[in-house]
Formats: sequence, structure tokens, C-alpha cells
Amino acid sequence: MATLIAPDHTSAVEDAEKLHKACKGWGTDEKAIISVLGHRDAAQRKQIRLAYEDLYQEDLIKRLESELSGDFERAMYRWILDPADRDAVLANVATKKLSPDHHVIVEIACTRSPEELLAIRRAYQARYKRSLEEDVAAHTKGDTRMLLVALVTAFRYDGEEINTRVANSEAKILYEAVENKKFNHEEVIRILTTRSKMQLMATFNRYRDDHGTSITKLLQGDSGDEFLLVLRTAVRCLNDPKKYFEKVLRNSIRRMGTDEDALTRVIVTRAEKDLKDIKELYHKRNSVPLDQAVAKDTSGDYKALLLTLLGKED
Amino acid sequence: MATLIAPDHTSAVEDAEKLHKACKGWGTDEKAIISVLGHRDAAQRKQIRLAYEDLYQEDLIKRLESELSGDFERAMYRWILDPADRDAVLANVATKKLSPDHHVIVEIACTRSPEELLAIRRAYQARYKRSLEEDVAAHTKGDTRMLLVALVTAFRYDGEEINTRVANSEAKILYEAVENKKFNHEEVIRILTTRSKMQLMATFNRYRDDHGTSITKLLQGDSGDEFLLVLRTAVRCLNDPKKYFEKVLRNSIRRMGTDEDALTRVIVTRAEKDLKDIKELYHKRNSVPLDQAVAKDTSGDYKALLLTLLGKED
Repeated sequence: MATLIAPDHTSAVEDAEKLHKACKGWGTDEKAIISVLGHRDAAQRKQIRLAYEDLYQEDLIKRLESELSGDFERAMYRWILDPADRDAVLANVATKKLSPDHHVIVEIACTRSPEELLAIRRAYQARYKRSLEEDVAAHTKGDTRMLLVALVTAFRYDGEEINTRVANSEAKILYEAVENKKFNHEEVIRILTTRSKMQLMATFNRYRDDHGTSITKLLQGDSGDEFLLVLRTAVRCLNDPKKYFEKVLRNSIRRMGTDEDALTRVIVTRAEKDLKDIKELYHKRNSVPLDQAVAKDTSGDYKALLLTLLGKED
Repeated sequence: MATLIAPDHTSAVEDAEKLHKACKGWGTDEKAIISVLGHRDAAQRKQIRLAYEDLYQEDLIKRLESELSGDFERAMYRWILDPADRDAVLANVATKKLSPDHHVIVEIACTRSPEELLAIRRAYQARYKRSLEEDVAAHTKGDTRMLLVALVTAFRYDGEEINTRVANSEAKILYEAVENKKFNHEEVIRILTTRSKMQLMATFNRYRDDHGTSITKLLQGDSGDEFLLVLRTAVRCLNDPKKYFEKVLRNSIRRMGTDEDALTRVIVTRAEKDLKDIKELYHKRNSVPLDQAVAKDTSGDYKALLLTLLGKED
């Protein structure tokens, strides 16, 4: 379930006019901007961008970039984009960092649906004139590259049909690899990067039934092992994306100095999807409501936008 | 340019009626079937299938399968399918063979456009309830698997923009790998499986400019080396698909015992695309027109269908 509160019937033209007024003249009315864009879904935001361009011959995104600043600007910029385009931007930023954010790439590749991932690859090409896998491959090497490229290029079967025979035999393959600490075994990579999520669920369940413990628990090892980190993130994202996102939020807030990038990313990308469920998991796991924790760690317009996306009534 | 001769305005209902009549009663009128289906493009054939189903509550493909036989049946079955669905079938047959036809997989992955390849992956899932890469990966191993899976999962940038700096540096990487006979170097695989076809063309051209010989010439070695064979096929398909198809046709005819699978595959998959150009290349290279060579090596209805698809006027 989503947290976003967006009315069914809105007028893109009226919204564009409100935003134009909020940006006009000296000073910016951030509250007004949040009260409009913080309550519109992806389709509505797109209509607003088109209406704004039409009315004022100006790109709304560029205008907001020049009006806003800091964490608030970054969050609003991410929020206003189409989801596929936003993920393309997030992935590109992640590959370009000096020490690339592999977990962001894995998160995008493994928590989006197969069709969503294709849309992201299309958006990436439209924006950067290169393919996503091309950039991921060019910035990585060895086993990590093999795994990451296979994850972003996967177009998994998305149906319900599973094969229990395959689940049994592949649970065994995973177990042997884990036992022998051969995490980079080519069969492990094949299984995790090509099987459907339903099939993997069956395999992971079988693993748990046979060995009394979940595979994620066993994927431990040298915390400096880049490949193992990527592998573990992939398994967690494939196995239980909501639980994964809860943990990203927990870490982003718990750390000395909030990790605004991660906090913004999860709230912005999940607000229209399953942030309500993630919020519940967070509350259960941390004994504090997520909005309270976010409110404590953030301030100003940035805080106001995040709380709005978390479902706060105005 | 295509060889298929299909009139602009046809009636799917009339065509379905003609086909029904050709299949009705004792004996089948193969000539009538060829004179209809051998002159309809993919969109028209689809309309005929729908009209037939509508009129006779029967699947035209199943009906034809029960009426026809041998090479003619197989060729007609391949021809009548939607192109993406047909490629899904070809790929599936190739993976299921005891010694898998890697070159068919490579051909499909490397000669179709990025969007076509996506459509094939979609069609594969709809038909087999598994992903294409899943089946390719499950039937292969080692370097060959790595290369094949990366080829079928690629969604290459399809635009015009190229980077000459990248072409220079990657021509150098390829050269070093070839020099050291390290064909399975991970950088070689990265370059061939992620770069756009235009970019690869620039890289191959640079290679030729720097070293006076084409990369395909140098990708020679142990002919029993499965990986090297796949690599060479990929480079040939990416570099010059028409030339590649001409050679497949040449080998399929020249051999003792025609290779009907290959002959059918190339004619059926290229008739609506570029078979005219391939025909010209064939004539130039073999000093015999392709239709003549095909006529000499085939017979009966199978021959009639192939020659029709090759552009023979009735």
C-alpha cells in the first residue's frame, strides 16, 4: 500500500498556475509547492509538467531547480520525475561515484518488476545515449561486474508458474556454494540472475525447510568483500523487498549524521508503491513510528516534503 | 530490402476462406495455401489467423500442421508465426537440442534490433513460462554461458551517437586480447555484449585502421573451441549481418545433404527484412543466383514456398 495522498480529480492547469505563482517574484513559497506536488501521483505530475511547459514555455523541473536548494531541492527533483526516469537518474548517479553505490544498482534491478526494469533501461538510453548495462560494466570488474550486469539486464519471467523440482535442486546448489564459501560460483550467479522471483522464493523456502535457516543469514563473510556485499543485497532485495527497505531506512536514520540520499531515495521511490507496509515494518522493528523518526532527524522544507509523502494530512 | 511480394490491400476473411477451402475434404491444395500465405506480410498473416479462428472456431496453425508434412510443414509453421514468436520458437528449439545450436541463439541475439530482441524475450515468456536467459543459462556453462547470456539479455543503445575515444581504447583492448589469444577476457565480453552496434562498428573500423586486418580474420583458433566459435559468430553477426546470412545460406546449400533447418530459417526470417540484399551478396559471391541454387537443392511444395518467399512471381 502507498502512503501518497493524491485526490482523484485534479486540474493540471490549475496546479501549474499555483506552482507558477509560488515561484514568481522575490522568494519562493515552498509550502505551496509541497501542498501541490506532494499530493499528486506520477501521472498527475506528468500532466502538470506538460501544462506548465504549455502555459509558460518553461521547464518546470529547471525552474524548481533554480528556486529550491539543498536536500529539499534534491528530494523534489527526484520526486517530480517519472518513476522510470527517476530510477535511471539514481542508477546513473550510483555508477558515476568514485566508489560506485552498487547497492543502489542492485536495489533498482531487484526490487522493480521486470517490466519496470525494462522501462528504466529505456529511460536510461533516452537520457544518456548509452545503455545502463554499458555504464555499469564500464565502472566495475571481475565477479562483481558479472553479477551486477546480469542483474540489470535480467528480464525475469513474471508469472506464477514455478517448478518445485528446480527449487529442490537449486536450493541444493546454493547450499553447497554457501557451505564451501564459493559465493561466486557461476551456478549461484545463474540462479539469482535468471530465475523468476516466484521461483527464487520457492528455492529460498526449500533452503530454509532443508537447513533450518535462511540463506541471507548464511551469506556472511568478510565485510570488505565487495562481491559478497552485492550478492547479499541482491538476495535480500529479491527475497523480501519491504524488509530490505525498512533496513535501509533504519540505517539511514540511525547513523551519526542522517544519510539523506538513502532516506530520500526510499521515501520518494516507495511513496506510491508500498511505503505504508514499510512504515508498519519500521514501527514494529524500531518501536517508533517512521514519521516521528524522520521528523526528529530532518528539518525545514525537506522534512515537510518527506512527511507529506509519508502520508501526513495537511 | 525485402523479397516478399505482398499486395497492399487484402481481405483477411477472403484469405481465411481460401485457406479453409484448400484444407477441406480429401487431400490438401498446397499450391493455394502458398499462393495466399506466401504473399502476406506479418500483419496480414496475423489478421488471417484471427479471421480464420473467428469463422471456423479452429486454430489455423494447428489445422495446417495436421494437413502438411515434412520440410514444407516446418517452413510454413515458422513462416506463419509472428516474427518475435517465431524467434522465440527458434531459440527454444536451439536450447533444447542435445548439443545446443549456439549459433542460432547468437544470430537471434545479435542480428535483431534491441527492441525486436525485447519482443522476443516477451514472446518467449508468454509461450514457455520461463525467461529466454533462464533456459540459455540452464543449458550451458562456463565462458560460453557468460557470453551467451550477456548477448541475449543485452538491450543495446540503438541511437547514432558514438564515442571515438571509447572506440580507440576498446579497439586496443580487443587487439591485446587477440594477440594474447585471451579471447575469453572479461573486457572482450563486456565490450561485445554491452556496446551499441554503431559503437562496435566504430571500434571494429578503428581496429582495421590500426592493424590492417579485420577482427573477424583474427578470431581464428581451435575449431573445437566452443567459446571461440560463439565469439566469432557474435562478431560476424554484429559486424555485418547480411554477409553472415549469405554465408549461412552458402553452407546450408553447399553441404552434402542440404541443411534445411538453416535454409528455412534464413529465408523465413529475412524475407520481410533484407533478403533482397542477401540474395545479391549470394549471387556475387557464388556466381549463381540464390533462387537457382535453392531450386536445385529442394523439391515439391517446400521448394515452391521458398521460391515464393524469395520473390518469385507466380
